[in-house]
Amino acid sequence: MTVLSSVLPPTAETELEAVLSAAHSAAGPLAALRPGERARLLEAVADAVDAAADDLVPVAQTETHLAEGRLRGELQRTTFQLRLFAEVLRDGGYLDARIDHADPEWPMGAPRPDLRRVRIPLGPVVVFAASNFPFAFSVAGGDTASALAAGCPVLLKAHSGHLRLSKLTADVVSSALAEAGAPQGTFALLVGTAAGSAALKDPRVKAGSFTGSIPGGRALFDIASSRPEPIPFYGELGSNNPVFVTEAAAAARGGEIAKGFVSSFTLGAGQFCTKPGTLFVPAGSGLVGALRQAALPDAAPLLNDRIQNGYVEVLGALERNPRLSVLAQGSAPLADPPTPTLLLTTAADMLAEPHALQTECFGPTAVVVEYDGESQLVPLAESFEGQLTATIQGTDTCDVAALVEVLSRKAGRVLWNQWPTGVSVTYAQQHGGPYPATTAVGSTSVGTAAIERFLRPVAYQGFPQHLLPEALRDDNPLGVSRLVDGRRADA
Amino acid sequence: MTVLSSVLPPTAETELEAVLSAAHSAAGPLAALRPGERARLLEAVADAVDAAADDLVPVAQTETHLAEGRLRGELQRTTFQLRLFAEVLRDGGYLDARIDHADPEWPMGAPRPDLRRVRIPLGPVVVFAASNFPFAFSVAGGDTASALAAGCPVLLKAHSGHLRLSKLTADVVSSALAEAGAPQGTFALLVGTAAGSAALKDPRVKAGSFTGSIPGGRALFDIASSRPEPIPFYGELGSNNPVFVTEAAAAARGGEIAKGFVSSFTLGAGQFCTKPGTLFVPAGSGLVGALRQAALPDAAPLLNDRIQNGYVEVLGALERNPRLSVLAQGSAPLADPPTPTLLLTTAADMLAEPHALQTECFGPTAVVVEYDGESQLVPLAESFEGQLTATIQGTDTCDVAALVEVLSRKAGRVLWNQWPTGVSVTYAQQHGGPYPATTAVGSTSVGTAAIERFLRPVAYQGFPQHLLPEALRDDNPLGVSRLVDGRRADA
Repeated sequence: MTVLSSVLPPTAETELEAVLSAAHSAAGPLAALRPGERARLLEAVADAVDAAADDLVPVAQTETHLAEGRLRGELQRTTFQLRLFAEVLRDGGYLDARIDHADPEWPMGAPRPDLRRVRIPLGPVVVFAASNFPFAFSVAGGDTASALAAGCPVLLKAHSGHLRLSKLTADVVSSALAEAGAPQGTFALLVGTAAGSAALKDPRVKAGSFTGSIPGGRALFDIASSRPEPIPFYGELGSNNPVFVTEAAAAARGGEIAKGFVSSFTLGAGQFCTKPGTLFVPAGSGLVGALRQAALPDAAPLLNDRIQNGYVEVLGALERNPRLSVLAQGSAPLADPPTPTLLLTTAADMLAEPHALQTECFGPTAVVVEYDGESQLVPLAESFEGQLTATIQGTDTCDVAALVEVLSRKAGRVLWNQWPTGVSVTYAQQHGGPYPATTAVGSTSVGTAAIERFLRPVAYQGFPQHLLPEALRDDNPLGVSRLVDGRRADA
Repeated sequence: MTVLSSVLPPTAETELEAVLSAAHSAAGPLAALRPGERARLLEAVADAVDAAADDLVPVAQTETHLAEGRLRGELQRTTFQLRLFAEVLRDGGYLDARIDHADPEWPMGAPRPDLRRVRIPLGPVVVFAASNFPFAFSVAGGDTASALAAGCPVLLKAHSGHLRLSKLTADVVSSALAEAGAPQGTFALLVGTAAGSAALKDPRVKAGSFTGSIPGGRALFDIASSRPEPIPFYGELGSNNPVFVTEAAAAARGGEIAKGFVSSFTLGAGQFCTKPGTLFVPAGSGLVGALRQAALPDAAPLLNDRIQNGYVEVLGALERNPRLSVLAQGSAPLADPPTPTLLLTTAADMLAEPHALQTECFGPTAVVVEYDGESQLVPLAESFEGQLTATIQGTDTCDVAALVEVLSRKAGRVLWNQWPTGVSVTYAQQHGGPYPATTAVGSTSVGTAAIERFLRPVAYQGFPQHLLPEALRDDNPLGVSRLVDGRRADA
């Protein structure tokens, strides 16, 4: 690993051109592979990353300050995700294949032609890796897995926080793809913000994805949207992830809620996009007292200096806000490394200044808000911008239907008596939400539906069988579930 | 109809505020209706529009110069479309309901929680009506039908080309919705570009849709994308809709192709977004001669003065281009009203100046391109920007797989031995395509999948049955097809 001991140089212009050209050339052959063939590519990458774990994890530990156990778990999640998308490909439901047979009596007033529709890949994608998941949202992470599954070549812009790990992982991914027979140009690593922006502007690139901060994601979204040919940009930006504790829940299990909340907001030193940043508790319920007494964990180093500086700055601004006071703090003062901190305010103060008090503070900090009656919960929920998650801690007897309605409008995922950290990779997962949670409200970056971001539908009208994509042929050689004349027809 | 005899005044600021406020208030109640209840609203609108046909069609004739038969057919298509979305609602497949049961052994490395995902409406939508379909892409048209079906209140920005018809139709729609019990604020008409832009900028509006020109649609897309909270904007902008005639097809049925092409590019005086604007024919095949002799229809007035002036201007620029010559023209010279015109060029000229020669000329004009061998077809196809449609006229023995692959990348719909005008409203239709055909490559504005534009997914984690949306409850009271633990489970 001697060549990696110095920081990687940014991708040079000539190298970028070669990489873009290769991705452009790879798009056709990669799209032409059968879904099952692309599944084998994903599995080859998963196997290779698993096999390289002992090389990758120590580098990740050094570069991100995350613990070995957490990183090994994250790597398992990462390779699971690749294999899950292989399963998605073999299932074929993601193709949303539809067949309408010709119908001379179609009641529209004109005969219906034979129309068949399937999803095809968009083309090369630039993926901007995240800092806080050096495996699962980085080089071989969810965006890479879903874009490759869709059949899109990936240009992976490495996060500056873990460049050595990025290069090591990219080498593992590239070798595995090459050995498995992927088209040359299917995957490449980009280093440096200039290369990332230039790639996003290039007409050969057809989509972008990103996990990170609101300002960073918005800047890239603006680039993607203002191109001569605008392209979809799937940014997962930021979220406060409020938690609403009902009076009955506070009475029934206040201690348990206090404990669960502290575990959740300090998990991974608070560096999750789903960290619960605000906890609404009934005034006088004892929950505030329980939190004041809670044993907050010791200070831990954050991912890198930039994140640590950002945390200190945002937390400082919150502490200086006269509407907030410190409720509890970890064993060391706010410094380097920063200590977990709970701040306290009231419902009235939050409603008076929601934007400032709901600012995402990336790190182990949260705001506890005392409310005076459950009638305040709906207006408090309404005061939030778009969120990745929103949580209710309630009991079966709580009348929270109105609150659930508001939170469904505000968030991509609504939780009941659970905690938002820990985003399971499943078929029904939704990791998204209205802006600024994401720049693409209809999409998810976690779960099997993430593949849809990199596909678009094409209809074939009046085509002979031999020229149709396999998923649309009468004999259904791929065995996929299809919508035939408006009805579900399973293979 | 005396009150409508003068042009409608633009929507005043105070009126716009009232309309936005009502739409915002209607969003929750409209979303809360069961799909079957919204289906009845759509059917009420369809019945009312059908019943008003004799009042509406004459006004449409006066305002658009389109023939009665065409307008009656378009009205039938419009009410069919509303009823088809009612069927979509009752089917429930559009909800994409997914249930993952909790699984402690989930191989991700952490237990899977109970996660359930469904699509919910985005909120109020501004729909910008088109000029060329005063019924089907206007007040009660496809965007209105699909947005209302999704559960989104609609602010309909009337097209200035048929304001009286817009007001009449809006009154029919509003009355029908009110009588059927729709929430107050479910639908409103906006008049004037200022009101349309202001609505699109308003934070209470959550999506926009549009059918019209590239400059107009791009300007609105830019507004939607540059808001503090960017929102999805589904613009269907422009398309050249190239047609590729293989050598074998030209030999086998050149005369029939010439006739079909003339019918298609002059249909409705060439005022379709799917008008075939370019025809590639083999040099020396006799097809050029057949087209030179073809009986082009007489000149007919276009929709309105603005469109007529635009047509004269673009056609003038094409005629002045030294790479183009006039191949055939209708009975009157290029003037007022403009006459159908066929222009001629070569493959080499088109490849030399593709952008100028592929400019959409909205009206009865097309360019015929002579190619020298079928090896030119792929580079010619590659020279196009994103298209709504692309067509091949071939025979079963033609080797066109590579051409089909390129056209699938370029267009939303690819046709074989048919003509692109006439967009059937079906389950498998795809009316979209890469920019500039649309501003949202993954979407369609025609067909049942158009409803997806106005929905977004929400996941519920760990929820008790009574707080879940009906589509996600164990007993499946709506009887919808769902994905359960990754497998299709039909009701």
